Amino acid sequence: MAQSSQKINMADVARAAGVSMATASRALNNDYGVSEATRRRVLAVAEELSYVVSPEASRLAGGATGRVAVVVPHISRWFFAALLEGLESVLRAADLDVLLYHVDGIEDRHDFFRRLPARRKVDAVVVLAFPVGEEEQRRLELMGVTIIAAGGQHAPYPNVSIDDETAGRQAMDHLLFLGHRRIAMIAAVDPDQPDEVQPSGRSNAYYSALRDAGIPVDERLVVTVDWGGDQGADAMAKLLSQPEPPTAVYAHSDEVALGAIRTLRRAGLRIPDDISVIGIDDHPVAELTDLTTVRQPVREQGERAGRMLLDILRGEETEHDVVVPTQLVIRGSTAPPRG
Amino acid sequence: MAQSSQKINMADVARAAGVSMATASRALNNDYGVSEATRRRVLAVAEELSYVVSPEASRLAGGATGRVAVVVPHISRWFFAALLEGLESVLRAADLDVLLYHVDGIEDRHDFFRRLPARRKVDAVVVLAFPVGEEEQRRLELMGVTIIAAGGQHAPYPNVSIDDETAGRQAMDHLLFLGHRRIAMIAAVDPDQPDEVQPSGRSNAYYSALRDAGIPVDERLVVTVDWGGDQGADAMAKLLSQPEPPTAVYAHSDEVALGAIRTLRRAGLRIPDDISVIGIDDHPVAELTDLTTVRQPVREQGERAGRMLLDILRGEETEHDVVVPTQLVIRGSTAPPRG
Repeated sequence: MAQSSQKINMADVARAAGVSMATASRALNNDYGVSEATRRRVLAVAEELSYVVSPEASRLAGGATGRVAVVVPHISRWFFAALLEGLESVLRAADLDVLLYHVDGIEDRHDFFRRLPARRKVDAVVVLAFPVGEEEQRRLELMGVTIIAAGGQHAPYPNVSIDDETAGRQAMDHLLFLGHRRIAMIAAVDPDQPDEVQPSGRSNAYYSALRDAGIPVDERLVVTVDWGGDQGADAMAKLLSQPEPPTAVYAHSDEVALGAIRTLRRAGLRIPDDISVIGIDDHPVAELTDLTTVRQPVREQGERAGRMLLDILRGEETEHDVVVPTQLVIRGSTAPPRG
Repeated sequence: MAQSSQKINMADVARAAGVSMATASRALNNDYGVSEATRRRVLAVAEELSYVVSPEASRLAGGATGRVAVVVPHISRWFFAALLEGLESVLRAADLDVLLYHVDGIEDRHDFFRRLPARRKVDAVVVLAFPVGEEEQRRLELMGVTIIAAGGQHAPYPNVSIDDETAGRQAMDHLLFLGHRRIAMIAAVDPDQPDEVQPSGRSNAYYSALRDAGIPVDERLVVTVDWGGDQGADAMAKLLSQPEPPTAVYAHSDEVALGAIRTLRRAGLRIPDDISVIGIDDHPVAELTDLTTVRQPVREQGERAGRMLLDILRGEETEHDVVVPTQLVIRGSTAPPRG
């Protein structure tokens, strides 16, 4: 430990500069939330008193760690990685460090939230696209840890997301406009958060679009699977095993749609001639594979969440529910039905 | 700051338990590198003395931060995200925290390595698949920061990677075995590290395979681009604009191969009937799109790097160059040439 920091401590610097401990800490750490004039005054006083900055110790004294925990259920899936990339870019520009926590499954999530507060390691937690229980949320709030969510709707805390129902309607309305009436849905759910508990906006869109078009629902055309390409492939096989298969498929994500397309191709069916397929996301591979989809700006959701967090850490007002727009991207996997 | 930790400090605990400050710190933090017996003794002494653990302060005293910086040039590309996922899983199981740093371009890299040592924030740095200069490496070593690399060969420090030349030969030898003689290569390079400076193993494989097969090199069949699907698409267009296009294409990655396939499909060419395409990686989308490729275990490279790092932090021996095997995965994008 630095000797001199035990002689002259940060409280001495703060007192001499006429600022709070927190402000002194931030100024000495070159942190956010301190005016240039204040920073200069604190640094001048510190120099005068021969105060040696120990970043770690001064952060402790100021009560701010300078670190943000980012909790993700998946890292290697594009959607989560792109969210993370956007978020990291904003936090790093503000000189905050990103502590990455991958939580795999519901047990892991509980464990993370149980252990985090006891460690007091971070100023804030950003939750990327998974649900946090009310009890967990309450505990974090009691500890003074700020929570932000991105990539999914979490009404209790500030969040950034798309409107899933609108995105689903953009996909469904495109298929209906092309003249399809026998439309299947491959619904994707998080195994830890089944769709039956709370139907997702993407599922609601399917039913409302059919209702508005006066088309009766045929539940045999709805298959629910976990998120993923292989799952989409299996779902498509199930749809093809019916006496009267669909003429179009609405998949909850591009990866699910790509899996469905693999099955169709193996069955010798042509896309879009024999059957149309649409996804949601605009995954980078969608462009390479000519997949019609509904684009959501994923990196931007991460960036917006980062900016909301900075607002809160600076004690400024921020929006509570930010919804970023989605848009239909027409490529080669959709066409009017035959005949 | 906790009052009691100023009365009874960690040095008192260490002295009473008959261990070093570093060992006391690790035991109190439940860190790696302390036997169960020692840990129990230290905890018993701490309890007896009513020592209050401040994780942050005790880490400082022990000289270990309990944190590892992971530096990545891209987060949202599958290869890097999968490496990161494997690495994080091993480090978190050892109760180490992962600080994530995205460095975008060569300036960002320099900036990262210039600023990191001054902050003394981490015990180690794991570099995911990009080059670190000798000067940067020396400075980190002087600061006592351990360096590990994964996903690329970096002879100076312990590293995990595939053998790029072997992987390339597996791809090329498959095309040659099928009877192709007019084989193009779409070589991918990092714009910050051009292939001309040091040809990659994947490029070397192309030339050695042709030489071994007695086929003269036609430099018009070699196109070099940055990594990425769009770049692969452009490269393929260039190859198709020649009087005598290739019958097969060897792409340095699956994403580059998928881009090439998009161009071929738009040109009305059938794969593999008219032209064969092979990539390297076994990206999850390769399976969905029926792409023949050379599989590399990416998540495993991250995990192995994590285990090597733990060995080093525990003061144990570790391997220096770990090469994980690759294997040909034959799918539907390759076939013998026509005629």
